[in-house]
Amino acid sequence: MALGLDFGTESVRALFVDLDGAERGSAYAKYAHGQIVANLPGSDVQLPPDYALQHPSDWLDSATRAVRGAWRRVGLPDARLVGIGVDFTSCTMLPAMADGTPLCLLPEHRENPLAWPKLWKHHGAKRQTERIDRLAHERRERFLDQYGGAIGLEWFFPKMLETLEEAPEVYRAAEVWVEAGDWVVWQLVGCAADEMARSTCQAGYKGMWTASDGFPSKPFLRAVNPQLVDVVRDKMPGRMKAPGQLAGRLSPAIAKRFGFEGNIPVSTAIIDAHAGVPGVGAADPGILVMVCGTSSCHMLNSVDYHPVPGVAGVVKDGILPGMFGYETGQAAVGDAFDWLRRLARRKDFTQLAGDAAPLEPGADGVLCVDWFNGCRTPLMNGRLSGAFTGLTLRHEPHHLYRAMLEANAYGLRWIVDMMREHGVPVKKFVATGGLPHRNPLFAQVAADVLGETILIHPSKQGPALGAAILGAVAAGKRAGGFSSVRSAVRTIGGVRKDIPGREGILVAPDRRRTKLYEPLYNRYRETAEFLQRNGSVS
Amino acid sequence: MALGLDFGTESVRALFVDLDGAERGSAYAKYAHGQIVANLPGSDVQLPPDYALQHPSDWLDSATRAVRGAWRRVGLPDARLVGIGVDFTSCTMLPAMADGTPLCLLPEHRENPLAWPKLWKHHGAKRQTERIDRLAHERRERFLDQYGGAIGLEWFFPKMLETLEEAPEVYRAAEVWVEAGDWVVWQLVGCAADEMARSTCQAGYKGMWTASDGFPSKPFLRAVNPQLVDVVRDKMPGRMKAPGQLAGRLSPAIAKRFGFEGNIPVSTAIIDAHAGVPGVGAADPGILVMVCGTSSCHMLNSVDYHPVPGVAGVVKDGILPGMFGYETGQAAVGDAFDWLRRLARRKDFTQLAGDAAPLEPGADGVLCVDWFNGCRTPLMNGRLSGAFTGLTLRHEPHHLYRAMLEANAYGLRWIVDMMREHGVPVKKFVATGGLPHRNPLFAQVAADVLGETILIHPSKQGPALGAAILGAVAAGKRAGGFSSVRSAVRTIGGVRKDIPGREGILVAPDRRRTKLYEPLYNRYRETAEFLQRNGSVS
Repeated sequence: MALGLDFGTESVRALFVDLDGAERGSAYAKYAHGQIVANLPGSDVQLPPDYALQHPSDWLDSATRAVRGAWRRVGLPDARLVGIGVDFTSCTMLPAMADGTPLCLLPEHRENPLAWPKLWKHHGAKRQTERIDRLAHERRERFLDQYGGAIGLEWFFPKMLETLEEAPEVYRAAEVWVEAGDWVVWQLVGCAADEMARSTCQAGYKGMWTASDGFPSKPFLRAVNPQLVDVVRDKMPGRMKAPGQLAGRLSPAIAKRFGFEGNIPVSTAIIDAHAGVPGVGAADPGILVMVCGTSSCHMLNSVDYHPVPGVAGVVKDGILPGMFGYETGQAAVGDAFDWLRRLARRKDFTQLAGDAAPLEPGADGVLCVDWFNGCRTPLMNGRLSGAFTGLTLRHEPHHLYRAMLEANAYGLRWIVDMMREHGVPVKKFVATGGLPHRNPLFAQVAADVLGETILIHPSKQGPALGAAILGAVAAGKRAGGFSSVRSAVRTIGGVRKDIPGREGILVAPDRRRTKLYEPLYNRYRETAEFLQRNGSVS
Repeated sequence: MALGLDFGTESVRALFVDLDGAERGSAYAKYAHGQIVANLPGSDVQLPPDYALQHPSDWLDSATRAVRGAWRRVGLPDARLVGIGVDFTSCTMLPAMADGTPLCLLPEHRENPLAWPKLWKHHGAKRQTERIDRLAHERRERFLDQYGGAIGLEWFFPKMLETLEEAPEVYRAAEVWVEAGDWVVWQLVGCAADEMARSTCQAGYKGMWTASDGFPSKPFLRAVNPQLVDVVRDKMPGRMKAPGQLAGRLSPAIAKRFGFEGNIPVSTAIIDAHAGVPGVGAADPGILVMVCGTSSCHMLNSVDYHPVPGVAGVVKDGILPGMFGYETGQAAVGDAFDWLRRLARRKDFTQLAGDAAPLEPGADGVLCVDWFNGCRTPLMNGRLSGAFTGLTLRHEPHHLYRAMLEANAYGLRWIVDMMREHGVPVKKFVATGGLPHRNPLFAQVAADVLGETILIHPSKQGPALGAAILGAVAAGKRAGGFSSVRSAVRTIGGVRKDIPGREGILVAPDRRRTKLYEPLYNRYRETAEFLQRNGSVS
């Protein structure tokens, strides 16, 4: 049995899975402080509107509750746990002391928002992103190649630079700057800072790290800000390891909190979305794995390297060994639906979805552009904003809701079109995450807009399953039983037509609707193009 | 004392006013059936989405309740009523029999939506409007001059043609086609159809009627549809009269329903918005009178005639004698606010307005285009639709509400700019109607965007007051005491700085905000221009 720990935006999920892929028990636990967007916990300090923070104590507290809850459901006191894997949102990052203590837990920094962990969606580093982006282009930095030519607002270095510039005392006090996923693994194994496993996945996709050149060079960092010149040496200790590589063994203290015995192998972290790729058994190239939740990440492995403008990351061995991992995404999906639900003061989506489903493509004239949290792929611009057009007095919230679902699908089609136009084969579509399971309309609209069949993977917790698979891999051949990552992915994560409950759901496109969506998609693209020029807000 | 009857979209208001302008008592009564938009009363017949009908029995039923309610408040059993004036939404129109019976009250037509009175905002005649517009341009019809070169979707002939084409049996059965305001006056005086007073205001602004040429010519009507050729002679009986001219005297039957004695003079009808001009004492040229309610109408008198593209109507003596009356308007104002209120499930506007007021110009990045019921002035296109751009996950309903208020003000500024650019002086701004009194933010945002002071007229019932003034005028010099319409307008409708409660409220612009609105207005215009090309729905 392997354990996957999936650290999301609002909660952490723990999943125990047998080494043949049978899910044995899972539970989730919400973070006590959720997303911190209004004011700091236990304080009057108000946050600027583009801030999104997390409380670092929430992570292990919630993980403990989730693990104990899931373990109770397994109900096998003698079950053997071979390994633990961790996935985490990214780039969620924090400053810490060398002993692992998050800076925000120290009394002298606790009232400074910039000492707190920044959640992936924290958008406070706009100016810093622009400067790093401009300098990287001026200097033709090679790492740009793997990011579609643009530095993201949500990445590691912009977030760190924001703190250096806005709260230099916090920057100075920090002994370690670290991805939250790496921090959690560090705490699980309880090693020294120098020994911590830094994930090549997180670093490759969000930290401008490449296997050939490492992190950005000192001359580049000096140009960004002279105080950054030695940050990699001085404040980013640890060893680069790939997901699935052994980070260490569970410390006795944490094993006790979780209720385990023995020194269980722990895998190096992986980004939550990326964990979905092994989680849905996508061991082969050409499969677009869509992890749909608060936001959507789409991952694809490809044998060849083709630069695609606006694709957020192309990292060699970034997801699975031997292939180029492409990462694209949409910045507001479940978050946007939830925004509309709150706007319309609905308890849940039941009525909205029920009323939206029978509407014809086009939502009775309402068109949405889904940039409610900026546009990730392909424009890589966090300052862009969303829109509704075609509104009339007769429209009701379910028209807006359907328009949002359609906008999400148009955004997805745009990404797929871009990849194919640049020579990256996209042959199959697999959806995972909470949304496709909760909302049948979500995948149907996407299938209709794309004109492609979408497989909804049976696991409702693809990333947690992927993390568990990496835990099994980290255990090694002898303990885990797998001679390759691919065989573990196929065996544990694959769809099984012969096992009830593990067949998945195939959502086929309706050809009539696909045709109707064609001009609507063009209208979406025209509107998006206009908003790119006109609709941005600072 | 004079009585004004103001027939609005949802209710009728009765106002008794002394001949020196002191309001003595008023009351309103809602129409039992309100706006009929879902299905016909007492029937399962569903209406298409662009339909908006009224129940003709509601008008006199509600008027009776309003008059009796207002009269009780006057509390002077011996008060002398010199005249009655009527204003009505336009073009609200209906087919009737020669004895005045609305066709929809006959059993054989009651289940046919097209036999019912069409409310001004009924948008079922899109194809018909386009054909009339095209033919008028091809034939260079002179009446086009007074309409800014475009025929409106909401006008009399398109609505009549819609019925002819969609329900020919209704068209054939109708003996009289009539504006609802003229129909009410007809019923009040109880005369024969041939004797009814048809208002030059309604006919001039909504019926393609000109003082020089009358209604459209037979060759034109034949080109539109051969069956229309003799419609003016056969189905539009009556005598053209200007508002303020005597239509007849109150019939004994109606006098009894209202609780009056004597045969009281009744004025020819006027369009509700246009009644606001005398109602606010605007006897002089260059005063933009804004009647703000469900929709907004802006009226202005000018000494000279300057054609302005997209201005819905320029009618000689159309509002007050001796001047050219310019009518412009915005199709969704209170209606649009109410749409948002319902979307956000708020009981009233208290919290929305309270939260929106402190926001800076620009609503934190949210921009609205206010075409939720099409664009009246200056584009004259009922197919256009509204939009919100700049939306992000942090925005709440009050941001959208403020953006809507700002969009309304931008639309107003666009109209004022157009008029001035084409040589029509706009010197003063007077607001009336329910909205400016209920919502202080409404006029403030408009004043800030325009950079102009707006006078909110003290009467909360400007159109009703205007109708009462016309009632006094219709009574003649001997009974009413006024030797000219202008002297009646000034005496009864004017602001009185010496009388508490009749001073009005001056809303001055905030120069800092006016400056901030300048680039935002340009962004609105750019977005509107884009939506004109892209955002229209059929």
